[in-house]
Amino acid sequence: MEAYLHKVHYYETDKMGIVHHSNYIRWMEEARVELLERLGIGFAGMEARGICSPVVEIECRYLRPTRFDETVAIRVSITEFKGVRLKIGYEMLNTAGETVATGASVHCFTDASGKPIILRKQHPEIDAVLRENQPA
Amino acid sequence: MEAYLHKVHYYETDKMGIVHHSNYIRWMEEARVELLERLGIGFAGMEARGICSPVVEIECRYLRPTRFDETVAIRVSITEFKGVRLKIGYEMLNTAGETVATGASVHCFTDASGKPIILRKQHPEIDAVLRENQPA
Amino acid sequence: MEAYLHKVHYYETDKMGIVHHSNYIRWMEEARVELLERLGIGFAGMEARGICSPVVEIECRYLRPTRFDETVAIRVSITEFKGVRLKIGYEMLNTAGETVATGASVHCFTDASGKPIILRKQHPEIDAVLRENQPA
Amino acid sequence: MEAYLHKVHYYETDKMGIVHHSNYIRWMEEARVELLERLGIGFAGMEARGICSPVVEIECRYLRPTRFDETVAIRVSITEFKGVRLKIGYEMLNTAGETVATGASVHCFTDASGKPIILRKQHPEIDAVLRENQPA
Repeated sequence: MEAYLHKVHYYETDKMGIVHHSNYIRWMEEARVELLERLGIGFAGMEARGICSPVVEIECRYLRPTRFDETVAIRVSITEFKGVRLKIGYEMLNTAGETVATGASVHCFTDASGKPIILRKQHPEIDAVLRENQPA
Repeated sequence: MEAYLHKVHYYETDKMGIVHHSNYIRWMEEARVELLERLGIGFAGMEARGICSPVVEIECRYLRPTRFDETVAIRVSITEFKGVRLKIGYEMLNTAGETVATGASVHCFTDASGKPIILRKQHPEIDAVLRENQPA
Repeated sequence: MEAYLHKVHYYETDKMGIVHHSNYIRWMEEARVELLERLGIGFAGMEARGICSPVVEIECRYLRPTRFDETVAIRVSITEFKGVRLKIGYEMLNTAGETVATGASVHCFTDASGKPIILRKQHPEIDAVLRENQPA
Repeated sequence: MEAYLHKVHYYETDKMGIVHHSNYIRWMEEARVELLERLGIGFAGMEARGICSPVVEIECRYLRPTRFDETVAIRVSITEFKGVRLKIGYEMLNTAGETVATGASVHCFTDASGKPIILRKQHPEIDAVLRENQPA
């Protein structure tokens, strides 16, 4: 999909003069929300069906700093889904086209009480969308 | 009560090299949680009784900057409660004893569905604690 | 000016299920950055000239909750500037056109060392822009 | 060292009712600051010597949710330092002694301009402390 764009806010910087590393984790969430939205299975829709998708793992590699007022483009895609764990990948680029960070998040699926859900059984239409949008 | 202490975190600073102003609003919440805890009517207990106390107004005056690793002492107290709106005041001091900021928050009380509650009728013991702890 | 738009992020919500009140203070900054940008005196340009504009006062009144994935429109304008203190006002509306919050921030102007600046003397072009954009 | 303690703040929760995953990354920073402080090479001292230690990688595995008002104990230690990259490990436990999350961060060392520093040459006393505090 087209990259998700995030304009860096002043409050996201720290005393090093650059964006604090914890904010990239939040940008990954913003991009992920947009990805699921575009796939027609947005967070809001998921929660309406009683599906939660908590983060079970997160990682980020920081290659170049980003600064206030820059626009960061985030390429986000499903990198793996075999039915239980959803892995999403992120590549963040500055306006010069340089990769500033790469990241990944892993999610599971539970009902509102925290009990694991098998999407294929309980929400096969969502399972199908996730499978179809994996890399070939 | 004894002042609530907050040690400034690196991630609370911004590119000006000082604490970002939005964080003082969060520190006020930390101090308020501690105040209610010490009065025996902590947030957790309030929520267990189904009482929410959303913020309806907030204000803060910034007098001096604060920096990473400083410890800020927050004096927090009930400044007014006549039965509906709870007003809480904050004075924040650096280790030199200088006031770095002052603030105030106003809260109302609702049930979980957002409907206003009259504490005196529904939770008279909480109403009593709030009234007794106003300034004379 | 046209309202600044902020789409509510998941990470801005709290356990009450609505946006945490501290985030409105951050949205006010986002809208202020955009306002100054449109007036041709953006933060980046100000800092390049060595001008800081720290927040000296902030206030916000919360009228209605906002939720994940909502888009909040923020009307932002200069409400007063007589040469020393810049006061900016904010009205935040949901997509139903209801006011969800109103706010104000007051700023002063200093050089990088924190020493007060008289804009009219040192940066008359910025002083002029701020004065011209006050309400009649 | 003794675990670093973090009491969960209300503003750290999200609409799932638990702590938002991005905050663990911030807690890791809090614990790391404390670790370096206890080793006698605190962030403040490092920055006073003109040493920056940006985060180049971060990862976190989330095993159990944490909630408002809980106290999380963070065991933090140097897991590897061969002279260039500093790797720090984190284990976060709830008051029941259960591991709620594990994490790791990797840091490099630069001067204020972002140029890499070889600690052994420029700050051998810091290099020595980091080496001595690796696991045997």
